[in-house]
Amino acid sequence: MLDLGVLQRNLDRVADKARLHQLKLRPHLKTAKSAEIARRATARHFGGITVSTLREAEYFLEVGFTDLTYSVGITPDKLADVTRLQQAGARLNILLDDVALARHLSDRDHRNLPPFRVFLEIDCGYGRSGQPTDAEAVVEIARLCAECAHIEFRGVLSHAGHSYHAGSIEEIREIAASECAQTVAAAERIRASGLPCPEVSVGSTPTFVHGEAFPGVTEVRPGNYMFFDLSMRHRGVCEPEDIAVSVLTSVIASRAHDGRVLVDAGCLAMSKDNGGAGHPYGYGLVRDKLNQRNHGKAATYILGSLSQEQGWVARADGAEVQIRDFAIGDRLRILPNHSCMTAAAFDSYHVVDGGLDIVDHWGRCHGW
Amino acid sequence: MLDLGVLQRNLDRVADKARLHQLKLRPHLKTAKSAEIARRATARHFGGITVSTLREAEYFLEVGFTDLTYSVGITPDKLADVTRLQQAGARLNILLDDVALARHLSDRDHRNLPPFRVFLEIDCGYGRSGQPTDAEAVVEIARLCAECAHIEFRGVLSHAGHSYHAGSIEEIREIAASECAQTVAAAERIRASGLPCPEVSVGSTPTFVHGEAFPGVTEVRPGNYMFFDLSMRHRGVCEPEDIAVSVLTSVIASRAHDGRVLVDAGCLAMSKDNGGAGHPYGYGLVRDKLNQRNHGKAATYILGSLSQEQGWVARADGAEVQIRDFAIGDRLRILPNHSCMTAAAFDSYHVVDGGLDIVDHWGRCHGW
Repeated sequence: MLDLGVLQRNLDRVADKARLHQLKLRPHLKTAKSAEIARRATARHFGGITVSTLREAEYFLEVGFTDLTYSVGITPDKLADVTRLQQAGARLNILLDDVALARHLSDRDHRNLPPFRVFLEIDCGYGRSGQPTDAEAVVEIARLCAECAHIEFRGVLSHAGHSYHAGSIEEIREIAASECAQTVAAAERIRASGLPCPEVSVGSTPTFVHGEAFPGVTEVRPGNYMFFDLSMRHRGVCEPEDIAVSVLTSVIASRAHDGRVLVDAGCLAMSKDNGGAGHPYGYGLVRDKLNQRNHGKAATYILGSLSQEQGWVARADGAEVQIRDFAIGDRLRILPNHSCMTAAAFDSYHVVDGGLDIVDHWGRCHGW
Repeated sequence: MLDLGVLQRNLDRVADKARLHQLKLRPHLKTAKSAEIARRATARHFGGITVSTLREAEYFLEVGFTDLTYSVGITPDKLADVTRLQQAGARLNILLDDVALARHLSDRDHRNLPPFRVFLEIDCGYGRSGQPTDAEAVVEIARLCAECAHIEFRGVLSHAGHSYHAGSIEEIREIAASECAQTVAAAERIRASGLPCPEVSVGSTPTFVHGEAFPGVTEVRPGNYMFFDLSMRHRGVCEPEDIAVSVLTSVIASRAHDGRVLVDAGCLAMSKDNGGAGHPYGYGLVRDKLNQRNHGKAATYILGSLSQEQGWVARADGAEVQIRDFAIGDRLRILPNHSCMTAAAFDSYHVVDGGLDIVDHWGRCHGW
């Protein structure tokens, strides 16, 4: 279930902040993967989006999004698909961080085909892909691209994925500042070599939500903020009421004799993302019991463990579940640990607007 | 990718064992969720299958499977869908383990509608759903069903899910013996009360693979055995070469300066199932490098960690990755920790037969 009001508030918050800081917003659709949501997320912005698979690029191109950044490092055997998407109308930016691959691109026989639009990926501390700001390869790759007639060098790009594991808001702010500083510094090195570097693109939900200034940055690419989730809540990036997606389940067992309450949502619906060490919400937080049965003060319930299609309800404080709070058939809404994973288990969103009445169904793309 | 030869060998092994022990095989399609695979899995058996969602029941009914057991405890609000499927031709068995729910079913105004086909679920030690063998509710539920004109009581059923966490093959054998003994004992209690209990259904992949005798059991319902996975390998239930599914990935980074190798398969493809404590394969085992580059003796590589669309290659022994073993664009086949989860990330199977040529595409159902 996707709550329209919560979604719109999340979208507005980020879109407003991007405008305030005069940043282009190129939202990452890896979480939502939905045309309806992409339209809302790009409203009053330039219309560019980020995608995490070429399948997403294809899906979003089909529904009218032409300015796309594919945010996973490219490989030679994907270039034919890139060209095919470009010929179908996409301005598709690709990422690279490797000198040999840049050379492969520039040596390629590419006559009469649309030029590759390339971002150089910078590792600003996450430790995944990207070149360190001070690597020789930064200028070398920019030069290989600049000197090649069929490559349009777009700029530098980084993703501060380590902000998802920060221990405090202060630490997120530090990562945000460092993400900007390192990515801008890479751009400055390229420019100091007499080469163009028009774009400086950064982005993660924690660093954009908590970042205070973005000097030298031209574009941001957060994605999870559309829905948020319990992992973001645990890191202080959102409140529980900001989480726009939930899984609607039914109680399938409520047993006095062994204190067991089960629901019909398991790891295929919620995912097996446990939120990492110290995460206090098990495999999901019971947002509300739609048929109210709590006697007295409501306890905080979570999914304590999961099998494929079943979840064990537990109390967040480890106390025994109050069996009388639950009866077979009761409906529970469960907030997910990781909305990117949970949403991926579903073909479409049941859209609600405050209440429980389904006001729309929005499709989403999946697969590769 | 699904290897046809491996699949068929796995199917034959279980189908042969079921025939040897004169057991009906009602394979669980929760893992494969595919009509093509269900046809092969039921060959030379009676044709009944087990499903984990009503969506699966609908999908398999549409392709001609009529004898179905829905293996998650029923709720009142699903009964209309059950009746709808029955009216569309399904002999759909449902599960219950609750006296109040049995009473609800028997009190229901159900004139001129097909009778509910009910299995009583027994908890043989897993600690999920089901009544303990010796619970008063066992005979009470059987009696409520037997006395109701619109309920056809099918028998007792259990699932030894705890066998997935067993520490040794010996322990799996003990669980298998206990699963049979407890489920048969529940049936005997019902029969001793003068009530019918035609079926005694048990089943999990570990207990059926390693179980030695199944006295009193009429039917078995393993599912994971069709594909197996690294979790089953780790428990001694299969060998790596028995794993029928793998994820084909490309190397997207191979960097001498920081010893990092990345592939374009992350948690959306592999799932975040880490196999539990002591699991030695990270988030997946590199089965083979399709462009061979290993110099000298091949190291064992795994996926050490994952982000949404990326995986970090690591060595199983914790040593440094040999960067020269990998180049951008190299293809790796990764075996999954949990094939039920990994297969669920894909819309269809790329079927191969020994080699890498795709000989077919088989669809699968998903969602709820």
